[in-house]
Amino acid sequence: MDLNIKEIRDIDPGERILMGPGPSGVPPRVLQAMSAPCIGYLDPYFFTVMDETQALLRGVFQTENALTIPVSGTGTAGMEASFVNVVEPGDEVVVCVNGFFGARMCEMVERMGGKLIRVDGEWGRAIDPDLARKAVQGRKPKVLAVVHAETSTGVCQPLQDLAGIAHQAGALFLVDMVTSLGGVDVGLDKIGIDIAYSGSQKCLSCPPGLSPVSFNGAAMKAIESRKKPVPNWYLDMSLLKNYWGKERKYHHTVPINMIYAFREALRIVMEEGLETRFARHLLNHRALVAGVEAMGLSMIVPEPERLASLNTIRIPEGVDDLRVRKSLLNDFRLEIGGGLGKFAGKAWRVGLMGHSSSRKNVLLFLSALFSILKAQGVKVKPGAVEATSAVYAKA
Amino acid sequence: MDLNIKEIRDIDPGERILMGPGPSGVPPRVLQAMSAPCIGYLDPYFFTVMDETQALLRGVFQTENALTIPVSGTGTAGMEASFVNVVEPGDEVVVCVNGFFGARMCEMVERMGGKLIRVDGEWGRAIDPDLARKAVQGRKPKVLAVVHAETSTGVCQPLQDLAGIAHQAGALFLVDMVTSLGGVDVGLDKIGIDIAYSGSQKCLSCPPGLSPVSFNGAAMKAIESRKKPVPNWYLDMSLLKNYWGKERKYHHTVPINMIYAFREALRIVMEEGLETRFARHLLNHRALVAGVEAMGLSMIVPEPERLASLNTIRIPEGVDDLRVRKSLLNDFRLEIGGGLGKFAGKAWRVGLMGHSSSRKNVLLFLSALFSILKAQGVKVKPGAVEATSAVYAKA
Repeated sequence: MDLNIKEIRDIDPGERILMGPGPSGVPPRVLQAMSAPCIGYLDPYFFTVMDETQALLRGVFQTENALTIPVSGTGTAGMEASFVNVVEPGDEVVVCVNGFFGARMCEMVERMGGKLIRVDGEWGRAIDPDLARKAVQGRKPKVLAVVHAETSTGVCQPLQDLAGIAHQAGALFLVDMVTSLGGVDVGLDKIGIDIAYSGSQKCLSCPPGLSPVSFNGAAMKAIESRKKPVPNWYLDMSLLKNYWGKERKYHHTVPINMIYAFREALRIVMEEGLETRFARHLLNHRALVAGVEAMGLSMIVPEPERLASLNTIRIPEGVDDLRVRKSLLNDFRLEIGGGLGKFAGKAWRVGLMGHSSSRKNVLLFLSALFSILKAQGVKVKPGAVEATSAVYAKA
Repeated sequence: MDLNIKEIRDIDPGERILMGPGPSGVPPRVLQAMSAPCIGYLDPYFFTVMDETQALLRGVFQTENALTIPVSGTGTAGMEASFVNVVEPGDEVVVCVNGFFGARMCEMVERMGGKLIRVDGEWGRAIDPDLARKAVQGRKPKVLAVVHAETSTGVCQPLQDLAGIAHQAGALFLVDMVTSLGGVDVGLDKIGIDIAYSGSQKCLSCPPGLSPVSFNGAAMKAIESRKKPVPNWYLDMSLLKNYWGKERKYHHTVPINMIYAFREALRIVMEEGLETRFARHLLNHRALVAGVEAMGLSMIVPEPERLASLNTIRIPEGVDDLRVRKSLLNDFRLEIGGGLGKFAGKAWRVGLMGHSSSRKNVLLFLSALFSILKAQGVKVKPGAVEATSAVYAKA
């Protein structure tokens, strides 16, 4: 593209209803906080903002971990930070894979020189803990890693058994909570998660740009007893803790305004209360499923393994995936996600995360989808709004 | 800190005049753009935003390089990206060090397993190209790296000779432009810089959160001919180019709203025009120096090696560094930086970057500093405003 500056206009994305795999809709309060005046990263007022952000984040992660901070990058940076701080070349790392993001973990571990032990499960199903149990047998893995909420498949992974398996094997239990933190109940300390990371733009409804992470004492010990320094300087937790801790030692310039936004988003989560928020996510998910099934469509994930925040709907035979999604975006300003990896062309991914998890969005999506399928000549049953309303009526 | 959510109030940093080492003051237009509705990272409108951002960024970097993008992290992530993509274990890397950020480069190179060849210069002075010439003799370094604008010392490094030395030795020329891009003239293509990185929050006056980088053909070739994949997945340019390029292949969720802000900041730079902008930075720098010297204070860096965007003033014997900076912040809402590394307690770092490089700020700072030093019983000469005004009058 040649630069013709006069042709570049003011930013104007227009309206969007974000029901894809993230970002989710951002509440006006968060955007407002984000546009407060930028100040220095060593400013005394900013130190207060940091302390409050950490306190709120500990509340949302349900942990006492001192090292609970937003990393200055998006969710993938959190994934990288979680592994690179504890995995040294030659270390055995068990990774459970039942979707796109588990596979990404494997890629990272191998690039870092870790010895990968891959536990493969079916896409669209939870990992059977027995597979992990067998994988660790006779080994001394440094880490056992799993994705709690697979954004690519809509599966919610039960964690308690895996935590036990990891700890019995002497491994750190590392969990990807990108699409669950703040939307689906998972307390780090009660489950025994040693390292967790998430993203700002999913159930927390902040714009993308930060990745909250939390490392417990065992994880910090692993970092302290490394043979060599962390090869990734930007994400080195042993340095970052001295900026986020009492020392306030300069490491890198953190994204000031993103942290304003993030703090506000966390404040909204805690104002609503975790229990209320989890219940809201669950209710809207159940209402959505009722409507989808009433239309004669089906969910990819079996009922007990479904994730409330990300719903995968099987695309019916003969339906033009892209045409439907384009119509949703153009005629309804509504974004949903297409399938990723193995599920490309086979699944619609409907996010009900944070601010986007609402009765309004559920009803609008179902009505819009019905209307579009009808217009495209797809056979679809009436009664979605009724079925969905029945779920809400009973709640 | 215990969490008492009711005690956490709305974000309200109040006023600040940012004349430290960054962030610089952010124009209202940029904050406004940043708070536009968040949309998806595969939204067609967002693709336009990406194209425009890249076109503007190429203009500011003065380059035709296809891979010219903002990395989803702050300046240090840009430094990490610049090295980790081309340096493989065992590769010789020559790093010129005359300040804090040159030393950080060394730290990174060693952590990546590069074989570091360190060229040490004096803090507060430019690197003598002969030192670099000697360092590369009889070697085949992969990279020769230098900081163009040392934020810790206020030195502006001449680059032309070093570019020649790098290329004669068959090395890539890698330049840190964190504190110069958009404020001090340095064209990538005309000088022959192969890899450059900067930060959003310095002379570009966007909030921190993004690090613009640019890799030319030679740098891309070096990435393509690596023996092993880049160990840092998040910052792997060979993957990032497929999202920022025509493929639009998902890599990670980029910080949407930060990119809105960054695009607007770049647009402001190009609207002003590079030549006008560089001249403004130079004029305000000269005016500041005239005032500082009229007061009887002195600059640390000798005249021909000074950086227009970051000015280091020698703290006079017996003056309480922290007390002066606290009074600037509390009584004038004006932030300047203290010394870093070897210069801790010895230098004030006064940034005149982007939006913060203004006649108003220069005069306010000089008046405030005079007033504070007087109040603290420091001997200081009158006439700073007059000397500064004379510089502006002649311009």
